[in-house]
Amino acid sequence: MRAEIIAVGTELLLGQIVNTNAQYLSRGLAELGIDVYYQTVVGDNKDRLIQAIGIARGRADLLVFTGGLGPTLDDLTRDALAEYLGRDIGLHEPTMAKIMDMFSSRGGAFIESNRRQALLIEGAVPLRNDTGLAVGNALNVDGTCYLLLPGPPREMKPMFDNDGSSWLKEQLGPAFTLHSVMLKFAGIGESKLEDVLLDLIQAQQDPTIAPYAKEGEVAVRVSTKAADAGEAASKLEATLTEIRGRTREHLYAEEDVPLEATVVRLLTQQQRTLALAESCTGGLVSQLVTTIPGSAVVYKGGVVSYSNEVKIGQLGVPQALLEGAEAPGAISAETAMAMAEGMRAAADADFALSVTGNAGPAAAEDKPVGLVYVGLAERGRDTRVEKLQLAGDREGIRLRAAKRALYMLWQSLSGQGQL
Amino acid sequence: MRAEIIAVGTELLLGQIVNTNAQYLSRGLAELGIDVYYQTVVGDNKDRLIQAIGIARGRADLLVFTGGLGPTLDDLTRDALAEYLGRDIGLHEPTMAKIMDMFSSRGGAFIESNRRQALLIEGAVPLRNDTGLAVGNALNVDGTCYLLLPGPPREMKPMFDNDGSSWLKEQLGPAFTLHSVMLKFAGIGESKLEDVLLDLIQAQQDPTIAPYAKEGEVAVRVSTKAADAGEAASKLEATLTEIRGRTREHLYAEEDVPLEATVVRLLTQQQRTLALAESCTGGLVSQLVTTIPGSAVVYKGGVVSYSNEVKIGQLGVPQALLEGAEAPGAISAETAMAMAEGMRAAADADFALSVTGNAGPAAAEDKPVGLVYVGLAERGRDTRVEKLQLAGDREGIRLRAAKRALYMLWQSLSGQGQL
Repeated sequence: MRAEIIAVGTELLLGQIVNTNAQYLSRGLAELGIDVYYQTVVGDNKDRLIQAIGIARGRADLLVFTGGLGPTLDDLTRDALAEYLGRDIGLHEPTMAKIMDMFSSRGGAFIESNRRQALLIEGAVPLRNDTGLAVGNALNVDGTCYLLLPGPPREMKPMFDNDGSSWLKEQLGPAFTLHSVMLKFAGIGESKLEDVLLDLIQAQQDPTIAPYAKEGEVAVRVSTKAADAGEAASKLEATLTEIRGRTREHLYAEEDVPLEATVVRLLTQQQRTLALAESCTGGLVSQLVTTIPGSAVVYKGGVVSYSNEVKIGQLGVPQALLEGAEAPGAISAETAMAMAEGMRAAADADFALSVTGNAGPAAAEDKPVGLVYVGLAERGRDTRVEKLQLAGDREGIRLRAAKRALYMLWQSLSGQGQL
Repeated sequence: MRAEIIAVGTELLLGQIVNTNAQYLSRGLAELGIDVYYQTVVGDNKDRLIQAIGIARGRADLLVFTGGLGPTLDDLTRDALAEYLGRDIGLHEPTMAKIMDMFSSRGGAFIESNRRQALLIEGAVPLRNDTGLAVGNALNVDGTCYLLLPGPPREMKPMFDNDGSSWLKEQLGPAFTLHSVMLKFAGIGESKLEDVLLDLIQAQQDPTIAPYAKEGEVAVRVSTKAADAGEAASKLEATLTEIRGRTREHLYAEEDVPLEATVVRLLTQQQRTLALAESCTGGLVSQLVTTIPGSAVVYKGGVVSYSNEVKIGQLGVPQALLEGAEAPGAISAETAMAMAEGMRAAADADFALSVTGNAGPAAAEDKPVGLVYVGLAERGRDTRVEKLQLAGDREGIRLRAAKRALYMLWQSLSGQGQL
């Protein structure tokens, strides 16, 4: 079954709101094994909406609408589809009764326009709305399925998850649904990873292999259609084993979690603690780590050493490293090492990461933009420092430096990587 | 000019990411006075992409693409449009040189697929990419305009705002363009602000008044169409004066900058310095401040005191405040005050902000989720502490607490607010 999602609302076209409904529905349809081929957004205009229905009808056999079921005059989805299909619209009595009840319990006068929320296209199945008034519509016309859902996410989501999904499963019959495993990687760029997996990606049929990159993260989704989880697992296994074998030093999770979540989980499991000393990242590593609930158990704290005074006073970096003609300076391997070791000792933590560098926009200490040193001090082991030359703007450099520091820690915690 | 936004990427159809680009572009086009009639999302599939181009060509005269300009095999936007238009693709030498430079500066081997990011459709104007590698394409073919932008928001946004907007303005000609002033507010919620301005919003005609809320920020855009900046300024003036008069204690900027940018600017102008002591915000305030280029001049550094050891050792918070049956505890006005004062003294800064509280998800020290204390220590003045009860999830509470702390500092720096 090929689906198109049609979100209706001028507020989307004006950029007043983000179309989170399209994401929610796309994910939900994928989980049912239904491929979404297009998402369309159209305004509150009946003619354009009817045109969009015609186009979607020609390229999809499931049209999922969200928005335009409310009480106001610019809620047009039901009318537009009825007109397109040449069908009448009738009143769904149970919904009408619910609306009247609501008005009488609130003690307000009935507002006539609310009757529109109880309308059902001839032949449509009503979809219950537990969090609002507008009734959903579902109908199958000569093999093309139409699902009409409200626009507000708090009404749309439960209606889709409950009556909407059930109705779709009936239309699908004893379906094969999509099963996916998300692989998450650190310490490797998108194009390098694709290079490593190129032959697999090019030869893919079933399972499919889809790489994608988010800010500072790289992921691959491996998917197959199967009748149940057991069959899916056996169909996915060979591909997963092959990818694992090629990427072991970078594969930090087999679910969609950020690197900092895996790091906090490993620290917690190993009952080890972390401290952070950050210069150019300005607290970003700390911010990422503390985003994870439960991080307080393993994260003792950190210092943002944006001035030499703080590097010296709070981290115990020797002044001789920072000042003087012969000094390596704040942006140096020596300082990264001293920051990590000073922080680890001050917080009495098992690990301390340090980051110092130039995130731009201008050169500093004659060091180029993008030059960053990351350090890892570990109780009872030698301190490691990596020198990076990162590309991008200030925010990009800071994010990549932060993720690289977390990757060093992951290498130690997981026993992977060059130790 | 009628626009259609075409976002390209299978990850959107799978629901892996939200289409925030469509919102950003819709808003940006609205600001140029261009109406968006449709938004479409299509996967990484050349045939379907070409079909979508054909449909959009029939109902819009500006097609804005985002996504599919990267180095990988499924980045197909450029190829699809070239094929649709029957045009060749050539290499944009300056971009190619930049890509080669990037690889040689990193010391890595050149990965051949990256050449794709330097490709330009015959007749297209290149659009500079300051935050990534892929060059943008802009072309006008017989009155239909095509704008090709990258998918990653951090590349797409600056390219659209800079070269993209300039090129569009050229295509529009000396029309009446939209002139706007963005007013930014802190220390006030969206609904409260709307209440204060309700009569103006309801009576609006020209200029228009549009309130916006982003995470942790509230803004109002005042807009009018005019032939030039001078005419626009005189049309906007009366409305702006009225809003300023009603909101002086919260209006921190008349351009779209975050609160931390205004705070860094004021500190720089007044040659005063800042230090930060954060518990529940985990470095978020520091991260926000250091996002601003030039912050290193005024920001001396900070401590993330996620454990009592760090509060005592690095900030000098008296142990008696933190431990013992009678102690007020880490989440208290007393501790917020001691953190701010200890940090200010340790860094010898003019100001120090402190944040301590419970961001959730569970109660801590028997203090409810959302209870946060923010402190401001200032050289030569009494330390102020505010108690907040914030709503929202962990991320929302952290962000609101961070912005509230920055608002306290802004009050002091600007001389506004209850001092």
